[in-house]
Amino acid sequence: MNRFGFTITAVVLAGLLAAGAYLFGARSAGGVAGFAEVARIAQVRQLAPADVAAAVRSFVPPGKHDEYYMISSGGHGGQVLVVGLPSMRILKVIAAFANEPWQGFGYGADWSETILDQGTAGGNGRLTWGDTHHPALSETNGEYDGRWLYINDRAHGRIAMIDLRDFRVKQIVDIPNMQTSHGGVFATPNTDYVHVSSKVPTVWGGGYAPLDQYKDRYRGVSAWLAVDRETGRIDLARSFQIELPPYNQDLADAGKLASDGWGFINSYNTEMAIGGNMEGRPPLEAGASARDFDYLHIINWKKAEEVVRAGKFETRNGVRVIPLGTAIAEGLLYFAPEPRSPHGVDVAPNGRYIVVSGKLDPHTTVYDIELIKKAIAEKNFEGTDPFGVPILKFDAVVAGRVNVGNGPLHTQFDERGHAYTSLFVDSAVAKWTLGEPYFRGEAAWKLVDKVSVHYNIGHLATAEGDTVSPDGRYLVALNKWSVDRYPVIGPLHPQNFQLIDLAGPKMQVVYDMPIPNAEPHYAQIIKADKIKAWAVYPAGTDLRTMGRSPYAIERGKERIERRGNVVTVWMTSARSNFRPDTIRVRRGDTVILHITNTEKIRDATHGFAIPQYNIQMSIDPGETVTVRFVADRPGAFSFYCTEFCSALHLEMQGWLLVEP
Amino acid sequence: MNRFGFTITAVVLAGLLAAGAYLFGARSAGGVAGFAEVARIAQVRQLAPADVAAAVRSFVPPGKHDEYYMISSGGHGGQVLVVGLPSMRILKVIAAFANEPWQGFGYGADWSETILDQGTAGGNGRLTWGDTHHPALSETNGEYDGRWLYINDRAHGRIAMIDLRDFRVKQIVDIPNMQTSHGGVFATPNTDYVHVSSKVPTVWGGGYAPLDQYKDRYRGVSAWLAVDRETGRIDLARSFQIELPPYNQDLADAGKLASDGWGFINSYNTEMAIGGNMEGRPPLEAGASARDFDYLHIINWKKAEEVVRAGKFETRNGVRVIPLGTAIAEGLLYFAPEPRSPHGVDVAPNGRYIVVSGKLDPHTTVYDIELIKKAIAEKNFEGTDPFGVPILKFDAVVAGRVNVGNGPLHTQFDERGHAYTSLFVDSAVAKWTLGEPYFRGEAAWKLVDKVSVHYNIGHLATAEGDTVSPDGRYLVALNKWSVDRYPVIGPLHPQNFQLIDLAGPKMQVVYDMPIPNAEPHYAQIIKADKIKAWAVYPAGTDLRTMGRSPYAIERGKERIERRGNVVTVWMTSARSNFRPDTIRVRRGDTVILHITNTEKIRDATHGFAIPQYNIQMSIDPGETVTVRFVADRPGAFSFYCTEFCSALHLEMQGWLLVEP
Repeated sequence: MNRFGFTITAVVLAGLLAAGAYLFGARSAGGVAGFAEVARIAQVRQLAPADVAAAVRSFVPPGKHDEYYMISSGGHGGQVLVVGLPSMRILKVIAAFANEPWQGFGYGADWSETILDQGTAGGNGRLTWGDTHHPALSETNGEYDGRWLYINDRAHGRIAMIDLRDFRVKQIVDIPNMQTSHGGVFATPNTDYVHVSSKVPTVWGGGYAPLDQYKDRYRGVSAWLAVDRETGRIDLARSFQIELPPYNQDLADAGKLASDGWGFINSYNTEMAIGGNMEGRPPLEAGASARDFDYLHIINWKKAEEVVRAGKFETRNGVRVIPLGTAIAEGLLYFAPEPRSPHGVDVAPNGRYIVVSGKLDPHTTVYDIELIKKAIAEKNFEGTDPFGVPILKFDAVVAGRVNVGNGPLHTQFDERGHAYTSLFVDSAVAKWTLGEPYFRGEAAWKLVDKVSVHYNIGHLATAEGDTVSPDGRYLVALNKWSVDRYPVIGPLHPQNFQLIDLAGPKMQVVYDMPIPNAEPHYAQIIKADKIKAWAVYPAGTDLRTMGRSPYAIERGKERIERRGNVVTVWMTSARSNFRPDTIRVRRGDTVILHITNTEKIRDATHGFAIPQYNIQMSIDPGETVTVRFVADRPGAFSFYCTEFCSALHLEMQGWLLVEP
Repeated sequence: MNRFGFTITAVVLAGLLAAGAYLFGARSAGGVAGFAEVARIAQVRQLAPADVAAAVRSFVPPGKHDEYYMISSGGHGGQVLVVGLPSMRILKVIAAFANEPWQGFGYGADWSETILDQGTAGGNGRLTWGDTHHPALSETNGEYDGRWLYINDRAHGRIAMIDLRDFRVKQIVDIPNMQTSHGGVFATPNTDYVHVSSKVPTVWGGGYAPLDQYKDRYRGVSAWLAVDRETGRIDLARSFQIELPPYNQDLADAGKLASDGWGFINSYNTEMAIGGNMEGRPPLEAGASARDFDYLHIINWKKAEEVVRAGKFETRNGVRVIPLGTAIAEGLLYFAPEPRSPHGVDVAPNGRYIVVSGKLDPHTTVYDIELIKKAIAEKNFEGTDPFGVPILKFDAVVAGRVNVGNGPLHTQFDERGHAYTSLFVDSAVAKWTLGEPYFRGEAAWKLVDKVSVHYNIGHLATAEGDTVSPDGRYLVALNKWSVDRYPVIGPLHPQNFQLIDLAGPKMQVVYDMPIPNAEPHYAQIIKADKIKAWAVYPAGTDLRTMGRSPYAIERGKERIERRGNVVTVWMTSARSNFRPDTIRVRRGDTVILHITNTEKIRDATHGFAIPQYNIQMSIDPGETVTVRFVADRPGAFSFYCTEFCSALHLEMQGWLLVEP
């Protein structure tokens, strides 16, 4: 024993020398001094060796950038989160379905008002929230291409499209014939379509129908929404839907490579239970779990395209719908039995395997697209469902089953043939092997590792995990409960994302990240260098078109015009004033402000707020925005810049003078 | 040179051994193996020694809790952020002035609707955003007591009060006679009052007045809002205001210990410039910076209390106001000259020093309350302002001036007599010494360290920095711009918080934290163990009273009652159903739902959403909430739980059946 309290053995010495060399390429005592400093701090802060290793695995030094972005749903906050990996720092919260004043979304800015008015869920007035669930990055050749993002609103049949040049919503689509949505968004490998299916069956055609007509009058729907490859916008006129039985269609995924042209949707409650726990019927959670099998929906969307092209559709609420009978007759819809209460369905990178997890069954069930095609060709059916949909024989289409643990939900993949399945009941992630071509014989379909997470994991995401070539570096567990992982800050707890390092043979939890706003549902992780976002807008950009606004002006061209009781102002903002800074109107006038931020450098955003008028806009460098309002209250209102922009920011204010 | 590429000297060897011993108390090769693993990862991830040290200074291992909470304003997002230190993870985003669906704030829940309706800014209809600026934790004996939080809305004259038992807003107060606010919130040492002053002068008495009557008809105001020590609520009936000249009153602070009973407000634009950059007048940023001095407002609020008690006030818009003339005559308001464009005013822990920074002057100016009291007693005035307020002689009240650098704004303190001043123009933090009793002679009033931050720092906060006994462990720089610190994710950039470790003689930036939603303005940092929040609500809690709701029920007592066209439902939520799960009404009925979450364990929150009705509530364990709506659209609406609560969460849905 020496004075440091440990015995120097040859092993210890070699380890220390290796450590010093590795860590700092230390050619001097200076590097070693740094090393000793790390040790000292770790001791003071009571960090164990595993803690220090975790820190070093996840830390991104000040000023350095993350390697990946995780694009996560923001759940019932109606938002989208952009998170850097591996640091797990939230870089931006994007307003999608809910008003957000910082981004000037829903507080007067014309582009935002236009978009929010698109998503009225059946024309019932503006909805000011949504429940974002499944983000889908656009793809080219099965790879994320970094252009657009789609995300559904589970509470309503809506999808928002976000342009990844400026990370702002450009379109909200209210999908006809769908009250709520769950199965998607997912993108086909070239983003020809994004798919979403209904969550709870809807009264078919709209309106009211009593629950005792559930089987006849309620229907599910699979929506294939055509994407314009130039603009990323969804084009309902080129889209189509497929009528489905009134089951609860659950998660979905698009085929790729071997299964390109196919789509897959889980279902539950094929019992068609309707609840009624105070009306003498079994509660839904029992009624919907009575049968041993539900149905994996297998859709040949390329064939569906042909059927639509051949005119075999009905138009319902403005969208082309293939009736259920036609879908069956044309051979574009098949079922395969799925073990109890299926939830996730995920297509492996090579497209061959479709992994389904039934949350009341400890196995994942792996379907093989080649077996499916063969069974369809051979009409290897075990019968039909009550609506006549052919059911493929279970044994004919299943390639493997793996006992992964309790409550399996969702599966992601790495590039080495491993699948990672979330276990809700066990609060764990199971790592297991796929079959050929990755693993053969004994090595295939085998559980190889398991790691505990905290707690109640829902989805999980691996880096580039939904593409044809995942990266397999990191996995994030999207845990639903955090319980004791964070201190108590009131009964409403954060969710908990956990970063899991996949580099070694054993999965390692290296970071706990609290989610401070709403429950994210699903996330995708994209390489940072695939995103080519704009740092500033070209001068005078209208956010709707991303082209020049007809109302854009240069500095020095500001003016105020009155025509009757309409006062129009062409204004500029630049450090440190609005020009003009004084607007004189009379009570009852309509005021139109066209404001151009003439700044050309990064981060020179100005805000614009008028007290008491509920107007707040964020005007980024190069942006031109318009706000219209009626000056219905007299007074002197000090409008001001809401982004601290310069040393004279506090002086960046002006007066809206409304004479009585 | 050995094969590791460095020369082993005695110094290197000793350093390595010391490191090994420090870090792991390593008595075995196992500890050393962990050490080598750290080194290996650092090399792979290209982390320099300083990076690893920074990681180890800020990292909080998975499952471990932070030592401090930073309570930060959420800026024009209208929110409050709760951030853990040193990990810099956002634990919660609290809805304050803006609707937030996750927390069920403004989407039907009765408690939230009641609170939002309180803050209508002069009765002009509900405002759905705010610009939160300065949080103030409640204090007892000058220490944060962890009970309540107050925060102002800079865009409107409003304050929100948050109960730190559940981290939810309980009250929004629309402060009369104030259009916009800036100077505060700050709390007096026993939270007798919270203070806020106007930002831009308001037409006195309300309504409209032309700008050429600015000097006569516009006024600033200092509001002393009385706090109920039992409930934390602001009581306007016990509050009072002081009329001020129409300057821009800026930041403020409360005296403590030596200066207890006093308040201080900065001002700028004592020129009373009104802008008019297209009306032939100088732009405000020039007009408001013409003079060499503005006025530090020195208010004796204990004397003001006596004046109010003596009945020497006017009642304006429901609140007692001490007229400017009375304030002067009674000797409760004095001015002291402040160098150019002052912004921050901060009272040192012992209460003796009042630090003012003028953003166009490289010095901080330190006033001494003893000198102020002496000058007042001796009527050592240099004259009065145009409204008759006595101006104390600059040299008579200033104890020290320190050349800290360009663009000084705000100052915080540690427990060792150091002040830390943010430098907006230099993008740096200056550390300097106060005078007696901390430092004497040469050592006093001296710049001792400076560190660069990134970029354009506004406020800064030290641990427990506004109390009588700061902790001096950590400092957070609240930077306004991030520019290149994060990858480009569109023109709207995150803000940048930087964690600075104060342990050593040199300040060290150890973490960059992006702010993903709006620009925080100010923050306070409180020791985590001072917060005694509730993990669950007692059964049947009404969030407004924190007592039992008259509508709370137990499981099994659910019922539906119809009286005329009003249908009232007493419902429970528990994993995994709502009971009743079926609600049958007719179009036009008024529906009242009283929902009790009967869960008793942590994190068992249920959401409740009705599609197309814009209703979304978060019902925490133990909470009882009420929502009222008119069933004005027919159909079958599948209401559901929006928090993933259990393995059968997806089945936690029901039907609102609205017959046509």
